[in-house]
Amino acid sequence: MSHRPDVSQIRAAHARIKDLIHRTPVLTSHSLDEIAGAMLFFKCENFQKGGAFKIRGASNAVALLSDAELRRGVVTHSSGNHAAALSLAARQRGAKAWIVMPSNSPMIKRRAVEAYGGIITLCEPTLQAREETARRIMAETGAVMVHPYDDDRVIAGQGTAALEFLEQVPDLDFILAPVSGGGLLSGTAIAAKGVRPGIRVVGCEPKNADDAHRSLAAGSIQPAAQAVTIADGLRATLAERTFAVLRECVDQIATVTEEEIVAAMRILWERLKIVVEPSAAVTASPALLRQIGAEGKRVGIILSGGNLDLDKLPFG
Amino acid sequence: MSHRPDVSQIRAAHARIKDLIHRTPVLTSHSLDEIAGAMLFFKCENFQKGGAFKIRGASNAVALLSDAELRRGVVTHSSGNHAAALSLAARQRGAKAWIVMPSNSPMIKRRAVEAYGGIITLCEPTLQAREETARRIMAETGAVMVHPYDDDRVIAGQGTAALEFLEQVPDLDFILAPVSGGGLLSGTAIAAKGVRPGIRVVGCEPKNADDAHRSLAAGSIQPAAQAVTIADGLRATLAERTFAVLRECVDQIATVTEEEIVAAMRILWERLKIVVEPSAAVTASPALLRQIGAEGKRVGIILSGGNLDLDKLPFG
Repeated sequence: MSHRPDVSQIRAAHARIKDLIHRTPVLTSHSLDEIAGAMLFFKCENFQKGGAFKIRGASNAVALLSDAELRRGVVTHSSGNHAAALSLAARQRGAKAWIVMPSNSPMIKRRAVEAYGGIITLCEPTLQAREETARRIMAETGAVMVHPYDDDRVIAGQGTAALEFLEQVPDLDFILAPVSGGGLLSGTAIAAKGVRPGIRVVGCEPKNADDAHRSLAAGSIQPAAQAVTIADGLRATLAERTFAVLRECVDQIATVTEEEIVAAMRILWERLKIVVEPSAAVTASPALLRQIGAEGKRVGIILSGGNLDLDKLPFG
Repeated sequence: MSHRPDVSQIRAAHARIKDLIHRTPVLTSHSLDEIAGAMLFFKCENFQKGGAFKIRGASNAVALLSDAELRRGVVTHSSGNHAAALSLAARQRGAKAWIVMPSNSPMIKRRAVEAYGGIITLCEPTLQAREETARRIMAETGAVMVHPYDDDRVIAGQGTAALEFLEQVPDLDFILAPVSGGGLLSGTAIAAKGVRPGIRVVGCEPKNADDAHRSLAAGSIQPAAQAVTIADGLRATLAERTFAVLRECVDQIATVTEEEIVAAMRILWERLKIVVEPSAAVTASPALLRQIGAEGKRVGIILSGGNLDLDKLPFG
C-alpha cells in the first residue's frame, strides 16, 4: 500500500480544487454539547456544492484528466451524490458525464444529476449490474471511469474535508466520518493522522449495512448484508483499496440502528437548524449517544450531505 | 415621533448585546439567484440563539433594566419566539420571566420557553386576553413588561440584525424583513435607512394577515383579519409606535399566499439546506417570485427564525 495517497497528495488535491468548492463552515451547539457530554464540531458538507462532500473527489479526479480524456468524457456508477458531483465537475470543464444509477436511487438525486447535465442510465440495484453497465458505456464511448471511491484521485479529494476541518479546529481529539465504500473515511483518516497523529478516527455506518465493521473485525472484506437502511448513501461496500487504508488508519467503526439514525437526524435539524440527510445523521449519532468514549473531548463530525426528498421525511 | 430610536441607538444596542448573541452568517445560492433574477443574500437568524432574531430585542431590553427591576423580573405575552428569547435573556441575568402565551402556540415554542426557565401562563388566543393576563401578572409580581414589539428597547435590539447585515454586505439595494407587530421591520428600516439612505425597505406578510399592508394603504391602523396562516409568528398587529416608523421608513409591503409560503419554505430547505420556519419563508417569497421589482439588484433577506414542529411539516 506504499503508493496509496498520503497527506501531501491530499494537500495537493486541496490546492487543485479549492477554487471549485466551498470552504464549508463548522457549526457548534451548546445544547448538543450537553447531550454528548463533549465539545462537538460539525463540518457542514451539506452546504457544499451539490449538497454533499462528493464534489471534492470528483473535481480532483476531473482536474487530473488530460485534454484527450476530457474530450471522451467520464463515467461512473453511484446511488446519488457522487453522480451529481461528477456531473457538475465534468460540466465545469466542458466534459460529458455518463452516470449509471441504481433504479432505487432517490428521485431528488436523479433530478440533481439531470440538472448538472449528467446522462443517466438506470440499472438494477446491485453492485454487479452497476459495474457491468458502466463497463459497457466505457466500451462504447471511451469515457474515463471515475469510481465513487475505488480511486486514489477521489480518495485524495475527499480527504480535503478533514484537512480543512483541522485548519478550522486544529485541536480535535476525535474525527468521525461515515463509511460506505470507504472513500471519505479513507481520505479523512489519511488527512487526520497525517496532520495530527494522535487523533482518533471513527467510521460510522448503519447496523443494517455494517460490512465495514464486520470486515475490519474479520480482517478481510465481508460481503454486504441486504443493506436495507434509510441512509441511502451508505449502501456500498468496501474495495480492497479502501479496506487497506481503513485497517491501517481507522481506530473504530461505530454502528447505528435505523431508529438512532432518525433520532439523530431530527435533533440535528431541530438544534442546528440545518437540513442533513440520513447518512450524515449516522455520523453524529455515536457521539450524541456517548457510544465512543469521547466524553470531555473535542469531537469533529463530518456531516456528509443534505440531499433528500422532503416528501419522504421520517418525521410525524 | 422625534423620540423614536434612530440608528445611533441601534448601534448602542449592538455594542450592548453583541457578546450575548451570535453574529449570524449570510448565505447565498446560485440556483436561488437564477430563480429570482437577482443576487440574494440571506441573513440566517434561524441560527441565532433561541433559533430566532428575538433574542436581539429581548437582551437589549433586559440589559437596560436596573438591579431593582431585575429582582422583580420581566413579563411578556408572545406566541412563541419572543417568549423563548425573553426567558433566555432574563435567565442570562438571573431574573425571572413570566410568559403569557396564547393556547394555540406551537408546542415546540412552549417547550423552548420552559427549557429557558420561563414561567408560562396560557390564555385565549386574542390580543385582549394576552394583554389582560400580562397586566394581571404585572400587578401581582411587579414584573417589568417587555412587549414583543411596542417597545423602543426591543425595536432598537431587533434593528441590530440589519446593522450587522449591512456590515457583512454593504451594498444591498433592497432589504426584506417580515412584518407582524412591526418590531423587526421598524428596527430594520431605521438601521437600513440610517446606514444606507437609498436602500429600499420591503416588509413581507401573509395575505391572510395583511393588516400592515392595509394599514399603510389606509393611513391608519386597520384591524387584523382572522389571521389564519401557517406563518404562526406573523399573527400580531401593528402598534401606533411601529406603524409610525413603517409610514416613515418602509417603501413597500409585499403579501404572500399560503401556497407561496410553503413553496418558498420548501425551496429554502432544498437549496440552502437550512431549516427555516414559515414566517421566514414569507420574507423570501416576494424576491423569489420577482414581485418587488428587484431583478438585477442585490437583495438582502432576513430569515427570521427556524423554530417549528418537525411533526407538522407542510410537505409530502
